[in-house]
Amino acid sequence: MMPRTAIPKGVRVFTPEETAQLRAIQAKLLSVFQRWGFREIITPTFEYLEVFEQPTGEDAGDQVFKFVDRQTGRLLALRVDITPQVARLVATTLRHAPLPLRLAYAASVFRYHEPRAGRQREFEQIGVELIGLDPPEADAEMIAMAVEGCQAVGLRAFQIDVGQVEVVRGLLNALQPAPALRPRLVSAIRRKDPLELDLLLREIPGAPDLRDAVRALPQLYGGREILEQAARLHFPPASRAGLANLAEVVTILENYGLAEHVILDLAETHAFEYYSGIVFGAFARGLGYQLASGGRYDHLIGQFDYPCPATGFSFDLDRVLAALAATDALPQVSGPDILLIDFSPDKRAAHRLARLLRDRGLAVARDIIKRDLTGSLDYARASAIRRAVILGSAEQPPETVLILDLATETRRSLPFEAFVQAVAEGDSPWPM
Amino acid sequence: MMPRTAIPKGVRVFTPEETAQLRAIQAKLLSVFQRWGFREIITPTFEYLEVFEQPTGEDAGDQVFKFVDRQTGRLLALRVDITPQVARLVATTLRHAPLPLRLAYAASVFRYHEPRAGRQREFEQIGVELIGLDPPEADAEMIAMAVEGCQAVGLRAFQIDVGQVEVVRGLLNALQPAPALRPRLVSAIRRKDPLELDLLLREIPGAPDLRDAVRALPQLYGGREILEQAARLHFPPASRAGLANLAEVVTILENYGLAEHVILDLAETHAFEYYSGIVFGAFARGLGYQLASGGRYDHLIGQFDYPCPATGFSFDLDRVLAALAATDALPQVSGPDILLIDFSPDKRAAHRLARLLRDRGLAVARDIIKRDLTGSLDYARASAIRRAVILGSAEQPPETVLILDLATETRRSLPFEAFVQAVAEGDSPWPM
Repeated sequence: MMPRTAIPKGVRVFTPEETAQLRAIQAKLLSVFQRWGFREIITPTFEYLEVFEQPTGEDAGDQVFKFVDRQTGRLLALRVDITPQVARLVATTLRHAPLPLRLAYAASVFRYHEPRAGRQREFEQIGVELIGLDPPEADAEMIAMAVEGCQAVGLRAFQIDVGQVEVVRGLLNALQPAPALRPRLVSAIRRKDPLELDLLLREIPGAPDLRDAVRALPQLYGGREILEQAARLHFPPASRAGLANLAEVVTILENYGLAEHVILDLAETHAFEYYSGIVFGAFARGLGYQLASGGRYDHLIGQFDYPCPATGFSFDLDRVLAALAATDALPQVSGPDILLIDFSPDKRAAHRLARLLRDRGLAVARDIIKRDLTGSLDYARASAIRRAVILGSAEQPPETVLILDLATETRRSLPFEAFVQAVAEGDSPWPM
Repeated sequence: MMPRTAIPKGVRVFTPEETAQLRAIQAKLLSVFQRWGFREIITPTFEYLEVFEQPTGEDAGDQVFKFVDRQTGRLLALRVDITPQVARLVATTLRHAPLPLRLAYAASVFRYHEPRAGRQREFEQIGVELIGLDPPEADAEMIAMAVEGCQAVGLRAFQIDVGQVEVVRGLLNALQPAPALRPRLVSAIRRKDPLELDLLLREIPGAPDLRDAVRALPQLYGGREILEQAARLHFPPASRAGLANLAEVVTILENYGLAEHVILDLAETHAFEYYSGIVFGAFARGLGYQLASGGRYDHLIGQFDYPCPATGFSFDLDRVLAALAATDALPQVSGPDILLIDFSPDKRAAHRLARLLRDRGLAVARDIIKRDLTGSLDYARASAIRRAVILGSAEQPPETVLILDLATETRRSLPFEAFVQAVAEGDSPWPM
């Protein structure tokens, strides 16, 4: 029997330090999103399962946490992906809102099986959806925001891999592999596995030009020049349209001055079947997993009876935190600013001081526990509190405030009213 | 068959306006908590069911959303209450952290049945836990923070009802009613129902003094004077200890200058069985439900093998929003600051402007869609965007920036470089 203190595998508790780091990163990304005109929405933690099911039935499935709605008997599911929830929201509550809609979210999602590095069963996402626009400028806006997000959180070395799923989809639709073969082909293309790809292609009769194009996909990875290489191959019209769209987006990204951060990758497909155009992922140098990913999904909102083009992306915050930790770039966090230690019998002076300091925006913890000054200062140090403000101790004259700076081990003593006046007037009462 | 766009009963989608209001309220309360020295933690959305089960088995039960952990076969539960999670965290991850711990959280909780007004199945809570302190100063800190929270979010008329569960518990333990009678007595006391109470008390033999004390509880509601009234009744020692504790807390609250916000209520018990001392609830005038509630729970953390006194409380944000809506006091929110409309073929000037404005902290949406100026301005108005910044329209000379203030219907035209310079130098380029 497990102890009552056990927590389920893959869920996480964030300590005060970890929470402060997560919130700092969230705030930086939300600030980027907000400055690009996006507004946050909040979606439910669970929904009817159907919202997360694609018509192909390929996606949700085994990853979803399901339970029965006692009221209706229908299956409920913990949010496995926020994009379909936003699609449902746009098609219902926001159906009559003017387009485009720029929406953002910060919430956790839940998936059963994610053996890859850094993956939890509950993990924090933060992202945006740009609804109602199909010009390539909209795709470029997403990629530009992903770059700005990476910069805002302090990632030093990162790149955005950009692909266009219609290139691969057009090839596969033209090749018409046996249904069982198709997902294996997609997987081999995505993993850039030339041996596997070759083996699979041998099982498809005819169309040598198309097979050559598929075989070339894993090498079509790099700068703008790979679009010229691709132009020399035999792509079907749908793939060519995808390549032309990708070229347009690249031009816009060059205008943004972002070419240095972008790598084109024609083998890029994406986990969710609903993607329908430009897709991309953000990677930190030396780490094998995506920090952010997204792309165009022009047919998803239509599944909720409101046909409407859209694109979006999200950061996986656990992975961003891991990437920052790997380069010692996590945000600095600390405890409250002040521990207020009061030995005087009449607590009113301490109440007054605490209120005054808090009104100036300082974080002031009261040391309510009964202990001596040494004990209180040990507590302050262990709690990452920078300063102690002391009233009524044996070490100080009456009617004074003793201030200890625990970082610099300096101290200062002030008459009570002089301290109050300095704080009220915004002068620094602190030791140097 | 329900449409795919249906959402389950009792869960909510927050639109951009509603989300901005919720986030504004959350930020104000988190700021209060932080200035009192509390630091946010994040708990998992689901846990093993046992974490939420009290030894008495009275609480979780039917309110909990449960599902089976496929890996272990154990029952998982959506977070029905955050306090037991914090208790578990304190007893495990934070077991060696110095006490007291001041912890805060902002998260949704999930409960099946809540027929009362304003209740959802998923609802947003924000609260604090003060761990490791049993002096009455700790209870007073919670109540003072609840008052400050109500003030911070803009509630104009509110009161905090303060009780002490040991008063009622001491009476019931002395009276020893039949087990089936006890919850009915508690309920009648809480509802201040004298007729029901009288009927129930007739079923208990003997102890007329104790029964008189129980019968008096619903009237013991008011200022400090009710403590003197209570002193004249026949309370058992445990109840008298509770009354003495309540008197100490009242004295501290008077020192804080908070007496005007506080009503004592000896009939106050609380929904959760784990409460063990001072309990309180915050009410807005004219609304029949609690906006915040909490109290002391000295025996809960011990259930996770780490005996430790504690107190805490939380705001129910849906109810706070409803209370603010009822008095027209919801935070004002609006759309992005600027819609950047660009008719010029070369998009680089627009990119440059957007970046410059965003670097100054302004929220700038690009109008990517193809439409005429009237259409774009209609969109801006419908999206609550205050200003339009226009490049390359037929209405303006080349190399100029046309600015329309949609709130005041004023306009201004500036040479492009003059606009850039004004923004870069922090001068206002906006029409009056």
